Amino acid sequence: MEFDHLGVATDDATGLAALFTELFDAPVAHEEEFDGMSVVFLELGDGYFELLEPHEDGAIARYLEKNGPGIHHVALRTDDVVGALETATGAGVELIDEEPRPGAWGHEVAFLHPKSTGGVLVEFVSH
Amino acid sequence: MEFDHLGVATDDATGLAALFTELFDAPVAHEEEFDGMSVVFLELGDGYFELLEPHEDGAIARYLEKNGPGIHHVALRTDDVVGALETATGAGVELIDEEPRPGAWGHEVAFLHPKSTGGVLVEFVSH
Repeated sequence: MEFDHLGVATDDATGLAALFTELFDAPVAHEEEFDGMSVVFLELGDGYFELLEPHEDGAIARYLEKNGPGIHHVALRTDDVVGALETATGAGVELIDEEPRPGAWGHEVAFLHPKSTGGVLVEFVSH
Repeated sequence: MEFDHLGVATDDATGLAALFTELFDAPVAHEEEFDGMSVVFLELGDGYFELLEPHEDGAIARYLEKNGPGIHHVALRTDDVVGALETATGAGVELIDEEPRPGAWGHEVAFLHPKSTGGVLVEFVSH
């Protein structure tokens, strides 16, 4: 698989996008409102930062309350999310999403439970 | 810049490497003892996972004690770490490393302070 993006929980996606663009030469690739959040993708070579600013209660809002802003998850790109989930289940990994669901930017996504993957929240994503 | 690697704090680098290799088709690219830690790099397309298992006190050991295992930092690849640090300083970002220092795998590295970058611990790395 390949790195696709790093999901970052923030309370100021616009401000963080401007800073990251300046620091990392990472221009805005895509912006949308999705699932009660402002979502900003910044280009990072062949991958992205995904900045997530929640406007209502949900997983990211609860993450921010508990942990403060920072890295939330890593997304790995695959052409076969269903097959990747089957491999994970076969390895005894607990899934958050039993099957792919629509994500931001029209992607198909599914998350693994971090307690099965060394505390790392992993998303499979297919473009 | 480009994604280089995702640093993961763990108390079992060998076990996590085996799991990630199976789940993500991410074979071991490099292993070494560095700075009191077992360090394992796993191939992830053009980038890497960097698994960090401390054997003595240090930043990663303290991170594990406070937060438990999981994503610790993101490393961005640049040919010019010094220039990247200058840009960061110019943008008002606080540095952890004022100048590049030797990192694992013979790399040159420098970290930014996460309080300046939305809670994201960022490493600049030059191969």
